[in-house]
Amino acid sequence: MTDDPRGGEGGPPINGLAVEACQPVYDGEVVDLSVVRFRRPNGRVVRREVIAHPGAVVMVPVDGAHVLMVRQPREAVGEYLLELPAGKLDVPGEAPLECARRELAEEVGRAAGTWRDWGGFFSAPAILAEYIHCFLATDLVPVDHTPIAEEEIEVVPWPLDDRDRLIAVVHDAKSLTGLLRLRHAWTGAGIP
Amino acid sequence: MTDDPRGGEGGPPINGLAVEACQPVYDGEVVDLSVVRFRRPNGRVVRREVIAHPGAVVMVPVDGAHVLMVRQPREAVGEYLLELPAGKLDVPGEAPLECARRELAEEVGRAAGTWRDWGGFFSAPAILAEYIHCFLATDLVPVDHTPIAEEEIEVVPWPLDDRDRLIAVVHDAKSLTGLLRLRHAWTGAGIP
Repeated sequence: MTDDPRGGEGGPPINGLAVEACQPVYDGEVVDLSVVRFRRPNGRVVRREVIAHPGAVVMVPVDGAHVLMVRQPREAVGEYLLELPAGKLDVPGEAPLECARRELAEEVGRAAGTWRDWGGFFSAPAILAEYIHCFLATDLVPVDHTPIAEEEIEVVPWPLDDRDRLIAVVHDAKSLTGLLRLRHAWTGAGIP
Repeated sequence: MTDDPRGGEGGPPINGLAVEACQPVYDGEVVDLSVVRFRRPNGRVVRREVIAHPGAVVMVPVDGAHVLMVRQPREAVGEYLLELPAGKLDVPGEAPLECARRELAEEVGRAAGTWRDWGGFFSAPAILAEYIHCFLATDLVPVDHTPIAEEEIEVVPWPLDDRDRLIAVVHDAKSLTGLLRLRHAWTGAGIP
């Protein structure tokens, strides 16, 4: 620590939360973990374990009267989960919408004629920097695709008439957020 | 690796995703990170960086015609965020509802006469084991409380009449999930 409120070792302040010191502790394939000291505007210094993340996208693909879900193994939580299709912003310079187009083709073999930006959210803001951009994708058409073998993704079209039961069985935060927005927007005949 | 599909070094299978080997790589104050090899039912072995987590609770506290939000510094994402009150299951043996009662008192100084279980969800199931239990809390009464200084939590009562704007400004997944459920349940006069 130094007398400089920004800190001799530190980076730029992030929205008033100044980085005073940053110690990388693990640089993995997916997880990059650092221990960071921040100085708040009131002078208090706090220590945080912070996981870096490039961000991600989640898509709500509506195909006629179905929403296209995916089922996949999620080792970190020990379950096969039913989720909305999603993917990481792992191509440098790729915009969120471009990533969403690529992932929609890769995971469910569809292109969308219409995209709507449904905002975004942090997944676990106490420890993880991941911000997820959410898109509604409609006017779908099939495209050629080669699923990535390791992902073992099964596409599960779910009838929108049965959306309350879907909301009851899905239990990951990004998918619930997208599906709760869809329930609000869905009129029975479409999305105005 | 061994010929035993469960693995000589491994633990028990979790829903068909057998742990074959587990190497702890960082044991922090909040983040415990391991590199785990899993064997799927089809025999494929995958390597995952897994962050352990005891789980958490998030509360949707409805006080008359307001929902009680909190604003706090979230260093990992570099912002002050407006969120629903929440907390970690960090007391050994504490049930989720007991944790919710404790955190509601600590963070917003209220006790609830009525609790409703609104299910739960994983926050980031690709890497983080955190499962968050969501509760609706109504019939609130004030209780004595001593806020935890380091948390710097500001209570922000938000009018339910203005819930669409709240949903537009909140951007963390657990809070959006709770607020989107609240929007669906709220009749204008209460929650049936």
